[in-house]
Amino acid sequence: MYAITIPEPGGPEKLVWQEVPDPVPGEGEVLIDVVASAVNRADLMQRQGFYDPPPGASPYPGLECAGRIAALGPGVTGWAVGDEVCALLAGGGYGEKVAVPAGQVLPVPEGVGLKQAAALPEVTCTVWSNVFMVAHLRPDETLLVHGGSSGIGTMAIQLAKALGAKVAVTAGSKEKLDFCRDLGADVLVNYREQDFVEEVRGATDGAGADVILDNMGAKYLDRNVMALAANGRLAIIGMQGGTKGELNIGALLNKRGAVTATSLRARPVSEKAAIVAAVREHVWPLIAAGKVRPIVDREIPMRDAATAHQVLEESGHIGKVLLTLE
Amino acid sequence: MYAITIPEPGGPEKLVWQEVPDPVPGEGEVLIDVVASAVNRADLMQRQGFYDPPPGASPYPGLECAGRIAALGPGVTGWAVGDEVCALLAGGGYGEKVAVPAGQVLPVPEGVGLKQAAALPEVTCTVWSNVFMVAHLRPDETLLVHGGSSGIGTMAIQLAKALGAKVAVTAGSKEKLDFCRDLGADVLVNYREQDFVEEVRGATDGAGADVILDNMGAKYLDRNVMALAANGRLAIIGMQGGTKGELNIGALLNKRGAVTATSLRARPVSEKAAIVAAVREHVWPLIAAGKVRPIVDREIPMRDAATAHQVLEESGHIGKVLLTLE
Repeated sequence: MYAITIPEPGGPEKLVWQEVPDPVPGEGEVLIDVVASAVNRADLMQRQGFYDPPPGASPYPGLECAGRIAALGPGVTGWAVGDEVCALLAGGGYGEKVAVPAGQVLPVPEGVGLKQAAALPEVTCTVWSNVFMVAHLRPDETLLVHGGSSGIGTMAIQLAKALGAKVAVTAGSKEKLDFCRDLGADVLVNYREQDFVEEVRGATDGAGADVILDNMGAKYLDRNVMALAANGRLAIIGMQGGTKGELNIGALLNKRGAVTATSLRARPVSEKAAIVAAVREHVWPLIAAGKVRPIVDREIPMRDAATAHQVLEESGHIGKVLLTLE
Repeated sequence: MYAITIPEPGGPEKLVWQEVPDPVPGEGEVLIDVVASAVNRADLMQRQGFYDPPPGASPYPGLECAGRIAALGPGVTGWAVGDEVCALLAGGGYGEKVAVPAGQVLPVPEGVGLKQAAALPEVTCTVWSNVFMVAHLRPDETLLVHGGSSGIGTMAIQLAKALGAKVAVTAGSKEKLDFCRDLGADVLVNYREQDFVEEVRGATDGAGADVILDNMGAKYLDRNVMALAANGRLAIIGMQGGTKGELNIGALLNKRGAVTATSLRARPVSEKAAIVAAVREHVWPLIAAGKVRPIVDREIPMRDAATAHQVLEESGHIGKVLLTLE
């Protein structure tokens, strides 16, 4: 098969579309004929040499895909060759075939095209596991989403609104904020012009956000703690603003707050399967009902993954950028 | 009545035993004739002027007491005048009488003397709410307790062992560590001579602690994150080592860890009542069964509270220091 490889770390031009050995599904795994993958920020870090695949994972980038099941490894039940699926991967989505533990596979949801389904696994699993399974957002609460127009952000807005919560977002342009508003966001903060602490407090009678979904890490740590409500939960899922920051423990203690930090990729297979099962139970029905949909910025042929990486690096996109094979 | 007052902030000598107006139980409150109170580090901070009572609380120090119910305010059910009780207070324990919301009152547990019961409310509510309600320590997990010989520490060791968990402790002397071992602690770390990160990893096949109960705040923040296991939870309940510290978000994210910080005193009455109810349900039976007991270092007459504060400041004690009236 062909796959995008990274012979040496560097810029987007270091991505090479070349022939590689076909993956073989192991015990409990399925082999997928990939139709589309999608780009995540982690792929950019992997390309730069800052984020090696976990032990045992495919060396190629790509944390999600959609396609058709091509073969079943030993011990797999519940799936059949030819099933149209999407899957959460530890790597290897940027290839024509990928092997994945069966517990990380999801059916293509009703009402979603096969290619578009590649936009779903990372954002639904990340948002559901952090905002709902870890931070337990409740319908009467306020969620602040940083990067509201990103793939993660657009899914977080939709899921939180579908469950009845109030949603505040930050983004860097009017166009992005307008898109967030159309998805249901209640409070729009242009981080280039406004202070999100002040805006979120102002929109919540001074209370602050009950849950914050953060992709900035260190750069926002202090202000995120300031923006938290009493009993608030800060869920960090990215460190685009640095990895070490000063934590105001006194402020956190006064609020009885929590700071969590997670990533999906390095989790054991059993934890991923539990998250995927919860997503199938709670998120898939919302998609089938038309209340939540994948947001796709554009499709780019997989062999031109370099172009897709440039799109993410320029941050002009809204939602997910797909890599397609058909 | 008489109470310990703080006419001006400062050293232990600033505590003055003097006549003050009797408290009057309001709606939903009971009035307690105090038999004993106990000293908490927060009392020392209040004496120094760093920790004002929350709005509406008694201006006198004292976050817990034991005694007999002297009167019921309007709307109180489930309690009768003469009942022997202990209670979690927002202040005022250092006095002959105190008024407290009925939801913060507990019966004196079976097998515990009335005075000794004053050693229970703060430590049981703090440990139960943090280690079990927030951090969800499980029987197959390891708890690291800093300050293992403190009032909080001795209760945390006993509760975690009673529920089947493995317990590591830090303390500053062999005498204190011996006491922790006799209470059931499995891993003993003298923080003056050993590195707790290394010791805890060594005792857990390199895994680290699943839950850490921390009273040091900033000073231990980085090492606590290093000592956490995958999916570990750091519960900060004190800031004896400073209020602002650098958080290694990258390390926390790799472990999918959580940092929480809480205090009891400032919580709304409804949250305190929920914690007290959980303690009565889960901890009181363990005390009645003799599996968990109050650890009392010594009793000091309440009018000599200054002496008791000196004892805590010198940190030579093990368990709780009581202030007695009878």
